[in-house]
Amino acid sequence: METKQKLLVAKIGGNIIEDKNALDSFLKDFSKVEGPRILIHGGGKSATKLASRLGVRTEMIDGRRITSAENLEIVVMTYAGLLNKTIVAGLQKNNCNALGLTGADANLIVADKRPAQFVDYGYVGDVTSVNSKTLKGFLELGITPVFCAVTHDTNGQLFNTNADTIASEIASAMGAYYDVSLFYCFELKGVLENIEDKDSVIEYINLEKYSELRDAEAISDGMLPKLKNCFDALQKDVSKVHIANADFIKDNTIKHTTLSL
Amino acid sequence: METKQKLLVAKIGGNIIEDKNALDSFLKDFSKVEGPRILIHGGGKSATKLASRLGVRTEMIDGRRITSAENLEIVVMTYAGLLNKTIVAGLQKNNCNALGLTGADANLIVADKRPAQFVDYGYVGDVTSVNSKTLKGFLELGITPVFCAVTHDTNGQLFNTNADTIASEIASAMGAYYDVSLFYCFELKGVLENIEDKDSVIEYINLEKYSELRDAEAISDGMLPKLKNCFDALQKDVSKVHIANADFIKDNTIKHTTLSL
Repeated sequence: METKQKLLVAKIGGNIIEDKNALDSFLKDFSKVEGPRILIHGGGKSATKLASRLGVRTEMIDGRRITSAENLEIVVMTYAGLLNKTIVAGLQKNNCNALGLTGADANLIVADKRPAQFVDYGYVGDVTSVNSKTLKGFLELGITPVFCAVTHDTNGQLFNTNADTIASEIASAMGAYYDVSLFYCFELKGVLENIEDKDSVIEYINLEKYSELRDAEAISDGMLPKLKNCFDALQKDVSKVHIANADFIKDNTIKHTTLSL
Repeated sequence: METKQKLLVAKIGGNIIEDKNALDSFLKDFSKVEGPRILIHGGGKSATKLASRLGVRTEMIDGRRITSAENLEIVVMTYAGLLNKTIVAGLQKNNCNALGLTGADANLIVADKRPAQFVDYGYVGDVTSVNSKTLKGFLELGITPVFCAVTHDTNGQLFNTNADTIASEIASAMGAYYDVSLFYCFELKGVLENIEDKDSVIEYINLEKYSELRDAEAISDGMLPKLKNCFDALQKDVSKVHIANADFIKDNTIKHTTLSL
């Protein structure tokens, strides 16, 4: 059996992006990772700040942004503009040949508008396909793709799409070519048994434990969709999934959460 | 002698970008152009609008934006975010495999901060190099690069850079590999003899005529740097330069201005 090349797919969220020192430090560490890698970033807090400066109302339901046309413009300006290019320039500074992307660029991530059922989320897209072949082409050119959480429908419409989900979908699609590790990087040490105790990291979560935690309502609302994304990836073609602090990228011996089926 | 493949480098400005119908129509026509092509877009008017909504002062000297740190953020949000991704999604709709770019992406355009002499332009960059090899790699993958007017210094700093100049620099650099036509596309029919008479197109301008016009102060201030960019490109490796209305892209028999040495 042929051994696949390793690929790291890492996702960073608002708490790193919003903190200049934390971001600089992460980008430095990420640049040192050997071999192909893909970065996905969120940016909701910055979008909310810009909306507030522009007097545009931000409405969230279950931690998801209701994306009106006006909110979509703000999302695209913030995610694809300021945050994405700041991260790209920061990686270039560390000799990592980053290329900033939305799903519309090179038609990399196609999505469908989420149907309005109980909630009309507006211009929110659910991923239907990832153009893994073009992405592989970029990696083979020595390029590090950097995705923000924007997709398109191939008919001219951009969408706001959850960054955790994009990371999971990209990792899953790239599993066809690579031995993929998916790393959700955030401010805590991992998934916590007790949200009040920052050290109460649950080190291993399998499907059974996930059901238990979910049924016992033992984990926070925000963590549930993240865990779903992790197990979606594991059930496709992803070898390893970790939820950990940003420092995990330079030291994989620190306490963190590992997911498995 | 080997015949080089043709490459179109087109630049569109604010008057097309700001007008949804004009932009849709241009993107449709641009998508029909056969063979490799690169698009560069401006967007100053949108940046000025956003600045005004945010209560940030816009200061222009000789038609050039004084780019404070706050203005740079607005420029990056507008050019690299909203406008670039709207254009990319619009091209994808027309089956043109567009990839939106700043100079930081894949390290494509490196610039130096313009030194503060008589005027301190702030975060404005003057292009020092174009990574034509990577750009050629993208074209060979069937990708259409779409550049906004943002560059970087490889040390983490983004810059605002004139879109006309970026178009000229890209066209010149790509001349090493391609038979390049550079097309400055705007709202008028071409360079006008008399700004009051929209039909008074000067059909041919060579270096001698350019000097005459400049010395006689017969052309508008805004047109002078554009003409300089045209002749810079011709003096490097660019075969043809045209200044014309957007319709020129589908009908090259309409009245327009052709530049030659």
